[in-house]
Amino acid sequence: MLIGLDELRAAAERIAPVAVRTPLMTCPWADDGERRLFLKPETLQPTGAFKIRGAYNRLSALTEEERARGVVAQSSGNHAQAVAYAARELGIKAVIVMPDDSPAVKVENTRSFGAEVVLVPLEERDTTPRDLMERHGYVWVPPYDDPYIIAGQGTAGLELAEDARGKELDAVLVPVSGGGLISGVATAVKALLPGVRVIGVEPELASDATEGFRAGERAVWEFARTRRTIADGLRTSAVGLLNWPHIKEYVDDFVTVTEDEIRNAVGVLARRGRLVAEPSGAVTTAAYLHHAAELPGARFAAVVSGGNIDPALLAELVAVAS
Amino acid sequence: MLIGLDELRAAAERIAPVAVRTPLMTCPWADDGERRLFLKPETLQPTGAFKIRGAYNRLSALTEEERARGVVAQSSGNHAQAVAYAARELGIKAVIVMPDDSPAVKVENTRSFGAEVVLVPLEERDTTPRDLMERHGYVWVPPYDDPYIIAGQGTAGLELAEDARGKELDAVLVPVSGGGLISGVATAVKALLPGVRVIGVEPELASDATEGFRAGERAVWEFARTRRTIADGLRTSAVGLLNWPHIKEYVDDFVTVTEDEIRNAVGVLARRGRLVAEPSGAVTTAAYLHHAAELPGARFAAVVSGGNIDPALLAELVAVAS
Repeated sequence: MLIGLDELRAAAERIAPVAVRTPLMTCPWADDGERRLFLKPETLQPTGAFKIRGAYNRLSALTEEERARGVVAQSSGNHAQAVAYAARELGIKAVIVMPDDSPAVKVENTRSFGAEVVLVPLEERDTTPRDLMERHGYVWVPPYDDPYIIAGQGTAGLELAEDARGKELDAVLVPVSGGGLISGVATAVKALLPGVRVIGVEPELASDATEGFRAGERAVWEFARTRRTIADGLRTSAVGLLNWPHIKEYVDDFVTVTEDEIRNAVGVLARRGRLVAEPSGAVTTAAYLHHAAELPGARFAAVVSGGNIDPALLAELVAVAS
Repeated sequence: MLIGLDELRAAAERIAPVAVRTPLMTCPWADDGERRLFLKPETLQPTGAFKIRGAYNRLSALTEEERARGVVAQSSGNHAQAVAYAARELGIKAVIVMPDDSPAVKVENTRSFGAEVVLVPLEERDTTPRDLMERHGYVWVPPYDDPYIIAGQGTAGLELAEDARGKELDAVLVPVSGGGLISGVATAVKALLPGVRVIGVEPELASDATEGFRAGERAVWEFARTRRTIADGLRTSAVGLLNWPHIKEYVDDFVTVTEDEIRNAVGVLARRGRLVAEPSGAVTTAAYLHHAAELPGARFAAVVSGGNIDPALLAELVAVAS
């Protein structure tokens, strides 16, 4: 069953008190005479990524009884911070299971929002939450494979569709990991901007969704494989079961980008676009900059999904000449 | 004579097609237990700074005859880019006089918007535009001392007042150079958020407006003096004649920040706030972070006025641990 506009609109009302209504930026620096780029900077969200949309929508739809039990989530990054932040805003106890190799900045931020962080070896990241749920009765907050999460992320698509008026977009570029963001955004775009293509973007090194899309069948990779990419937010090794039909139904094409292209795009976004993007957030700009031949059309909107990057890496990529 | 809300609202309608409606960001990273910070990122504007608001408002109010003559402006930075961009959008010829020591990134950007850039020695920056006006009939576009410019910049204040609902702000922090931005923003804040204080922020090294405010009389510094600050957008050596009465009437206080505090704030904004700010844009955050004792209250909104920073400087300031 696919999510519809009604669910997206209900989510938009729920999240209005905490999520930033991000604008669509005009980017003259990216004009190349033939093509134009517009960016939706989800880096402006209170937790630095779009994930707050889905997490807050999920948590605010819990029953009183569920809220009293508390929630548990598993994430190495932006979903962790989003659930912690949303739980604090709603007065709900949150326990976040994070692999012990998660970026330090994301662990610190998650803790700073008052969540209890449980660091576990990578191979226990799925079993530990189940243990915690059984022992303490916590409610599970999935990162993408959930109708409320998809609807919440889709609010970015509602806003984009509204801001796209008069811009004559040809396509919207969306990063793909578990598929929560693209499922929601594509739902909005296909309903409100018919004729505008929706393009998923993945790192080559974690292009399980691209492979599945081409084969017509959901692909599941080894996590050791997707883990190689610098885009730590896009290492999920398969799209969700509920996300897959949304992708099949609404997504028009996929583009993959190399690690060098991602690193370049992080630098370009900071130097020329005045945005701090994490590698996962920069993949769509990388696709625009480096894969013009695979992207028919002249006017593109790209979602910059997040900006939680290690400062040392940011400094390194800003320093490289474009 | 002071600008009123009607002029601001007319400006908001004029600039809607080109200026970004910037949001007010919640910044949990800046909570210190007692105080909260909200940021208005004008870095998202197509030219990377709030200046497009005033420039586009001024140019779109020109008569047909004036448009046909073309415009001239003088600026080392963000006003130059804004006039060039606005002129291109409106199909008006633009000549921009820039001192030959202007930041390279700002000169390049100005040229990239199709303007004719005339680089002159610093001491000819005021005489050259006059010559050009006399010889070619160009219309002068002042950077701040003009009712249309003030009204245009004030649209940022209208948006801020709208987004401040429910946030119980105590004060709004605004960078001060020639006074265009603070004149407009203060007009909106005093009309729409009565009780909220408006605080001007300047670098200590270019605190002419602070000195004038304390003395009750507009101060004019030597340019050699204001020129010492790293905040190249705030080197104007006196506020404008039309800006001064707005400041006297509406501004509640001034705070000055050191060069080290400015450099720190640029780094913190990138590392923790995920915003690329130029030094001039970071002074308000510097005031929040380093001058709590001079800022009574608990909830502050700060305008991050622009993000056109030399990439080498950005890389340097991001690399420093906070």
